[in-house]
Amino acid sequence: MKEKPLILVSNDDGITSPGIRALVESIKHLGDVVIVAPDSPQSAMGHAVTISKPLRLEKNHSYENLKAFHCSGTPADCVKIAVDKVLHRKPDLLVSGINHGSNSSINILYSGTMSAAMEGAIEGIPSVGFSLCDFSIEADFTLAGKIASSVAQNILENGLPPGVLLNVNIPKISEETFKGVKVCRQAHAKWEEEFDERHDPNGKKYYWLTGKFVNFDKGNDTDEWALANGYASIVPVQFDLTAHNAIGFINQWTINYEN
Amino acid sequence: MKEKPLILVSNDDGITSPGIRALVESIKHLGDVVIVAPDSPQSAMGHAVTISKPLRLEKNHSYENLKAFHCSGTPADCVKIAVDKVLHRKPDLLVSGINHGSNSSINILYSGTMSAAMEGAIEGIPSVGFSLCDFSIEADFTLAGKIASSVAQNILENGLPPGVLLNVNIPKISEETFKGVKVCRQAHAKWEEEFDERHDPNGKKYYWLTGKFVNFDKGNDTDEWALANGYASIVPVQFDLTAHNAIGFINQWTINYEN
Repeated sequence: MKEKPLILVSNDDGITSPGIRALVESIKHLGDVVIVAPDSPQSAMGHAVTISKPLRLEKNHSYENLKAFHCSGTPADCVKIAVDKVLHRKPDLLVSGINHGSNSSINILYSGTMSAAMEGAIEGIPSVGFSLCDFSIEADFTLAGKIASSVAQNILENGLPPGVLLNVNIPKISEETFKGVKVCRQAHAKWEEEFDERHDPNGKKYYWLTGKFVNFDKGNDTDEWALANGYASIVPVQFDLTAHNAIGFINQWTINYEN
Repeated sequence: MKEKPLILVSNDDGITSPGIRALVESIKHLGDVVIVAPDSPQSAMGHAVTISKPLRLEKNHSYENLKAFHCSGTPADCVKIAVDKVLHRKPDLLVSGINHGSNSSINILYSGTMSAAMEGAIEGIPSVGFSLCDFSIEADFTLAGKIASSVAQNILENGLPPGVLLNVNIPKISEETFKGVKVCRQAHAKWEEEFDERHDPNGKKYYWLTGKFVNFDKGNDTDEWALANGYASIVPVQFDLTAHNAIGFINQWTINYEN
């Protein structure tokens, strides 16, 4: 008999978040599930890894009949330590999330959820991150869970091209009005920062990062368009960041390094 | 008279590191320099931003005749707060570094130095990160400074294509044996983790992240090849992570979300 698929689950909201629990419930019928997730929320950690302090890794008993560990590190740390210290072989699939809040467009760069998926892809594991566009702790993960299950099954059956992972975002929408799933490109968008300036009790200034998300992209083939129009978005993502088209332009330059 | 170029300088090793001082010295003749850098080392922070606690931003007096600030946040935070709170207009150039240690190949994803440059590019600022392949606090930045100066001048004169930043790595090499600068693609490589397992005085396990860098890429057009063969590498980098070639493959899937 063929061995069951080995599935690693991680996230950035922490092992106790409703989102990771919804993800585990939605995919656990697909294989042997092992959970290695941060012991506390790690949102907006980007692809940080922990090199200046040691990590703790402890068994977690909040998942019945499943192997689960919480780790003191970042999402990328969790994947690294899972591969080296927890799993007996390379998993067949890594699923990250379900994130409480969107990771569409440029948000992928700041996202801990997606950094776990990216670390998985770097390790050669077929990997996907799921995010629900709803920050609420009481968000309804029913639709997101169904999509996660089907996407995970597709990856297990069809694989992913080398060097490619998936960024899946699900809109905050009722199942009745949901229009379906679209494969998209990352929209060209950014955050326009507005730091909120305050004074502490000693009169010294401090700043809270706030901002407004601005979508510059008019295309109807982007993740932002899909999410705004009732679709879930799947963006295939690569970790080769080379802007191949720009190589010729830079090659025309003369770089002087002699005095 | 045309206004002098406005140049923002940041890094991830912190405002007191020899690398950022070398960078400032090498480019300050090119325009009006403003430094906004972390108040403490932020290596391996990836593209983290600080959302769960407030930031501090203070004038720094260690740079004679230059406007300088240190910030309690990550490199990406430094760029965001510089744009919103320090600079009177969008800068003409952002330079980040000079990092103490390589940021070639996959290291770009973990790099705070490169996340500052990437944040600049997202803001629409022509941006570049510089790294010297020498971790020593006493590293010789002479050659790296000359290259930084010339690359910065080229960007000011020629601009960069939209959505493209540069990742420049300089080998640890004498100027006599240095062979020149190559425009490259990011090598396909990874870190193979080996967590170093120890026990604390209470007998509880903890782990240090260690690892071995493995280059799978046989090409002679990569940054790793250039650095191993006496060249500095320039990789043009993009923050659109879409794997456009994979869209057709994923489009063949059937995603079920009905019960």
